[in-house]
Amino acid sequence: MPAPRSDSRLPAQLRPITLEAGIAPYASGSVLIGFGNTRVICAATIEPKVPSWMKQQGVKGGWLTAEYSMLPYSTLDRKPRDISKGKIDGRTIEIQRLIGRSLRAVLDLQKLGENTLWIDCDVLQADGGTRTASITGAYLAARLAIQKLLDAKKIAESPLVDSVAAVSVGLFKGEALLDLNYVEDKDAEVDANVVMTGRGQFVEVQSSGEESTFSQEQLDALLGLAKSGLQELAGIQNAFLAKHLLAGAS
Amino acid sequence: MPAPRSDSRLPAQLRPITLEAGIAPYASGSVLIGFGNTRVICAATIEPKVPSWMKQQGVKGGWLTAEYSMLPYSTLDRKPRDISKGKIDGRTIEIQRLIGRSLRAVLDLQKLGENTLWIDCDVLQADGGTRTASITGAYLAARLAIQKLLDAKKIAESPLVDSVAAVSVGLFKGEALLDLNYVEDKDAEVDANVVMTGRGQFVEVQSSGEESTFSQEQLDALLGLAKSGLQELAGIQNAFLAKHLLAGAS
Amino acid sequence: MPAPRSDSRLPAQLRPITLEAGIAPYASGSVLIGFGNTRVICAATIEPKVPSWMKQQGVKGGWLTAEYSMLPYSTLDRKPRDISKGKIDGRTIEIQRLIGRSLRAVLDLQKLGENTLWIDCDVLQADGGTRTASITGAYLAARLAIQKLLDAKKIAESPLVDSVAAVSVGLFKGEALLDLNYVEDKDAEVDANVVMTGRGQFVEVQSSGEESTFSQEQLDALLGLAKSGLQELAGIQNAFLAKHLLAGAS
Amino acid sequence: MPAPRSDSRLPAQLRPITLEAGIAPYASGSVLIGFGNTRVICAATIEPKVPSWMKQQGVKGGWLTAEYSMLPYSTLDRKPRDISKGKIDGRTIEIQRLIGRSLRAVLDLQKLGENTLWIDCDVLQADGGTRTASITGAYLAARLAIQKLLDAKKIAESPLVDSVAAVSVGLFKGEALLDLNYVEDKDAEVDANVVMTGRGQFVEVQSSGEESTFSQEQLDALLGLAKSGLQELAGIQNAFLAKHLLAGAS
Amino acid sequence: MPAPRSDSRLPAQLRPITLEAGIAPYASGSVLIGFGNTRVICAATIEPKVPSWMKQQGVKGGWLTAEYSMLPYSTLDRKPRDISKGKIDGRTIEIQRLIGRSLRAVLDLQKLGENTLWIDCDVLQADGGTRTASITGAYLAARLAIQKLLDAKKIAESPLVDSVAAVSVGLFKGEALLDLNYVEDKDAEVDANVVMTGRGQFVEVQSSGEESTFSQEQLDALLGLAKSGLQELAGIQNAFLAKHLLAGAS
Amino acid sequence: MPAPRSDSRLPAQLRPITLEAGIAPYASGSVLIGFGNTRVICAATIEPKVPSWMKQQGVKGGWLTAEYSMLPYSTLDRKPRDISKGKIDGRTIEIQRLIGRSLRAVLDLQKLGENTLWIDCDVLQADGGTRTASITGAYLAARLAIQKLLDAKKIAESPLVDSVAAVSVGLFKGEALLDLNYVEDKDAEVDANVVMTGRGQFVEVQSSGEESTFSQEQLDALLGLAKSGLQELAGIQNAFLAKHLLAGAS
Repeated sequence: MPAPRSDSRLPAQLRPITLEAGIAPYASGSVLIGFGNTRVICAATIEPKVPSWMKQQGVKGGWLTAEYSMLPYSTLDRKPRDISKGKIDGRTIEIQRLIGRSLRAVLDLQKLGENTLWIDCDVLQADGGTRTASITGAYLAARLAIQKLLDAKKIAESPLVDSVAAVSVGLFKGEALLDLNYVEDKDAEVDANVVMTGRGQFVEVQSSGEESTFSQEQLDALLGLAKSGLQELAGIQNAFLAKHLLAGAS
Repeated sequence: MPAPRSDSRLPAQLRPITLEAGIAPYASGSVLIGFGNTRVICAATIEPKVPSWMKQQGVKGGWLTAEYSMLPYSTLDRKPRDISKGKIDGRTIEIQRLIGRSLRAVLDLQKLGENTLWIDCDVLQADGGTRTASITGAYLAARLAIQKLLDAKKIAESPLVDSVAAVSVGLFKGEALLDLNYVEDKDAEVDANVVMTGRGQFVEVQSSGEESTFSQEQLDALLGLAKSGLQELAGIQNAFLAKHLLAGAS
Repeated sequence: MPAPRSDSRLPAQLRPITLEAGIAPYASGSVLIGFGNTRVICAATIEPKVPSWMKQQGVKGGWLTAEYSMLPYSTLDRKPRDISKGKIDGRTIEIQRLIGRSLRAVLDLQKLGENTLWIDCDVLQADGGTRTASITGAYLAARLAIQKLLDAKKIAESPLVDSVAAVSVGLFKGEALLDLNYVEDKDAEVDANVVMTGRGQFVEVQSSGEESTFSQEQLDALLGLAKSGLQELAGIQNAFLAKHLLAGAS
Repeated sequence: MPAPRSDSRLPAQLRPITLEAGIAPYASGSVLIGFGNTRVICAATIEPKVPSWMKQQGVKGGWLTAEYSMLPYSTLDRKPRDISKGKIDGRTIEIQRLIGRSLRAVLDLQKLGENTLWIDCDVLQADGGTRTASITGAYLAARLAIQKLLDAKKIAESPLVDSVAAVSVGLFKGEALLDLNYVEDKDAEVDANVVMTGRGQFVEVQSSGEESTFSQEQLDALLGLAKSGLQELAGIQNAFLAKHLLAGAS
Repeated sequence: MPAPRSDSRLPAQLRPITLEAGIAPYASGSVLIGFGNTRVICAATIEPKVPSWMKQQGVKGGWLTAEYSMLPYSTLDRKPRDISKGKIDGRTIEIQRLIGRSLRAVLDLQKLGENTLWIDCDVLQADGGTRTASITGAYLAARLAIQKLLDAKKIAESPLVDSVAAVSVGLFKGEALLDLNYVEDKDAEVDANVVMTGRGQFVEVQSSGEESTFSQEQLDALLGLAKSGLQELAGIQNAFLAKHLLAGAS
Repeated sequence: MPAPRSDSRLPAQLRPITLEAGIAPYASGSVLIGFGNTRVICAATIEPKVPSWMKQQGVKGGWLTAEYSMLPYSTLDRKPRDISKGKIDGRTIEIQRLIGRSLRAVLDLQKLGENTLWIDCDVLQADGGTRTASITGAYLAARLAIQKLLDAKKIAESPLVDSVAAVSVGLFKGEALLDLNYVEDKDAEVDANVVMTGRGQFVEVQSSGEESTFSQEQLDALLGLAKSGLQELAGIQNAFLAKHLLAGAS
């Protein structure tokens, strides 16, 4: 029988998911999302123009760009700002590219019109899973922002073709665990991040074992666990949107 | 009779001041401060070492450094991050230097021990007065962080010798107004930021008329208005600390 | 029946793999690897010290760092150098982090001693699959460099615990294809990079569908195809090493 | 009775002010100004275009930009160049923004036409008060450059609506002193820089007590002292211009 | 009688010159040139546009830009990449400017049309003389690239008005030596790089004695030695081109 | 008969050489040198430590580093500062490396002790020949600074083993001219900079024909002309030093 998790969860149990709309009122849509102690400000802003490379290459439609940052007080030891080091670190770049790809996978850029949807994810508190919380919250912020465009009749139909959420899974002391917190993530033998749509299609599967390698069976177990967690997250997203789109809050 | 203010305030009236402790739980002390729509996350983090220049120059005691940033979704048009432009703009540098000087003016660095107190001010929503809200909130975050050091017996007595707060005043269509919002600030003929201790001593007076010049009489009127607002802010700070230090929340 | 591939290969067929040892004689080990038209200089250099963070954190053993770059004349339109743009782009950072993790997965850092193994991958010609060719060639360069350490009696046994290779797979017009060339990669609906050891354990699975999503069945098909290609690559690596380690060439 | 000043001046006495026109003959106007040992090259150059942001925002008229730098041999210990550190320090940015605002306060940008007036202040020798000497000299360089535009009939009337000068004042061992030299400035309890027009209107008041705080009475005393010094500086500026504009030298 | 050279050459003897065409097939022309152990990838790429400054200044014709880089494994101790230091070092800038001037001296930019000829020289192995090998190889890569333009009828006649090559000479223990290798170069009292056309006209003469000075007689001796080596190099260039232009390989 | 020079000089005639000691009193030695309209502030500063690479490599003695910059108002069109472009341009790097090598050629670094001699050359007015004026003036500033060390008994004997000066020569409309001004330099077919010691030994010969090539005879003529100019400059340097070292001014 495996040792209990540091926060007493079952292996297949998500941390408590919290959602607060409107944390950044000047954004088109914003959400403060919590996966347990991990808390991320997710904001979506619409800019009525597209990047210059699209013009130059003659690409039609809109664009979505994501930026991710850890606020300096989000970690137990203060983390210096990117600007004070003069560059973005490799991990941040990987994460913001992942967020961007994940959101674009459910976005019909043609239907977005000549707009750029900026996704900003700023981590207020980091306890593992900041990238998966970012993607899950960013979808909600984007949906709220799109509603603003629809309500203002700037676009005719929603460019979002599905919802999207993400969760981490990992092998920790040989056991497959869902939604790793920092302590688990740090010592996991294998760590995977899975991004999936509300309809159950994969968007990204990234599985890595830096200290270790893993078998097909282990990968299958991890993906199965991720799927169950992602179905639960999709339900939470739907309930949140049902409440806030009805209420018109964003 | 002057035209009413855009938000119906009286000339000598502050915007509603809101305070929420513990917005960033991993910081030693944190506050979300609101001056009307302007909202700033103020966090204080203690790092148990001092900058290398202090060692090199043989300076004893601790240090306090402040950083200020506007989150990209804090303005009505999205503001690019510093890191994407590769440098901090001049306005940001001026503000973080001002915050640092203001806090150090009420801090006995000798009594801080070999610690650096990091002050981070991140603007969540910007509607004028972000630097004055930052200073006012940063003092509270610093006070909460100091309490942690005291409670942990890492320092024997508080290095804070007084409280500090800041407010803006300006001449708008010839009238002296307290605590300008963005619309007023943008068109003010003269803009002053005044930093003052709880005991009523000036820490900084910065008065500038980019489009205009101003007389001694106008300066006197502005300073008088600022003082009355700063007394009110000192009272609000005291009430907040009385509640949170008693409760032990930080 | 699917359309034939642009270079007439079968779906499960690798491009011709070419290997030339000693392309950079001043490196400890070097290989010019070709996956069809894609050609990458892979060099391994041993530096008898470790990064300063290891010292600071008290971590024992050695380290491996990888750098990746596309030479400006590797693409049909000249690609500006990183230095002329002043920064490394996100794709390059992702790739060099992937190469580093892949090699460290088969490296016992304790047995490396206080050495850093630098892996440099410079793309001479880019026709798809530059990251997978880089990993596959980097292993060979590393193995040759390790032999130098062994021959010089600087380490007692090889720190390499297994071999490692990588290959891309993708869905192109609905069909699963092995080892995509540039034309296929550009238009693939789903693109996966799979890193595997010689013993058949996964090191990394990265599967992404930017324009599209994918199902569990499709992922399974892609991974199966990748495994067969990776077995073939492991055999080619073994044959190359048998020849060059015997001959003592590096 | 207070201790005499390090250079034997009276509390309300300026250092010897020296002015040499034409130090940089290729500039439109230039002055080498001395406040005692502090010596600054002030040059004004006219560029017949305006910044791109003015075009984009549809702002009419001209612009004035100021840059400030300390030459590496201006201090007793050599000061590294900005470029060798890769960035401008915060103090430099504050100063060049102050110089720019001060000059623009007396400049009617509409009357300047589509020209940018560049103000460059390079400190040749630094003994306190470099920013106030810069502003005082920059006005003269600007006035000489404007005369060139008038003489060449490129503008119909001078866009300068008043003169401008600056001086520092401070509390040193409790006494209010005018025009602090380096030794005084370093140890002053309160330091203020006051910018004023020839007609006696304030342009900027910046008063700060980093180690200390100050009262309304002390501020009043400092401002009074500054005003008397600024009247004297305005007279010196007038005499210099009378001589050089008559003579046509610039 | 002088000591024999480290590699047993006569004082006036070049190292073995090796040439391999087509090392980088996606470039318009490419050569791997060897001066003994020094090996440089020289590639010429044609970009059908000119730098923006030419448009702005109304300059007609084409342009040639050269870039030079040492690959990290080209030296016995690994040399960090420019990008990891964030800037190009002074030596690299000097060399790439020299390569550019040398090639432009034999290029009629009017006849090049509105094209930029990019010259890239990447050092694979560095044993002295990398800049002279670069120039000598770059001419060949450029000639092959020009042939592509001629064959494609994009230009009517070759813009190359002469060939160009370069060699180093130096005083080593008082003796004039041709084509210094690294060991000789490091300890030479005087080091000169001479660039000359096939018709025997100088393009550049750069002679420097950092540790020492030199007389007119010594300069004359060095230049005489360089000329004989450059005649030999011109012959090798001609033979190479005769073979490859006839064969149509590039 | 050749056309007269733009400033009516004879072909072998230097421009008027002006020298003013003590332009930057906080430097250890300083000179404002003029070659006609070209004027350069040359300052030498002694820092009592050596670069860290000397310590690491175990190199004994002192060091000399040179920095060169054009002040923004030194040219007829304002030249942006290096820092506003974020990097030093290639020409500047070439020049400061040349100044450094030229001075080190006459400096016995062992006799300098553990000191760094900083040479700063800032161009106040640029009319051709700024690098040659810089070298010629830098020697004088260095000599004055060395005298300070000698007078303070910090070193026992002068580490300067000879004097050094520099001059430009060029072919302009086929005629060899000494000390080119900007107009001549811009259109010269061949441009050479020659650095020579007071005893008549070459330190550097840099001859380049970007638009053109040149023959041995032309090079000989240019070098002959340079030598005569350099003898004259050495005489002027001696006279200046005789006056100022005697007087004790620096």
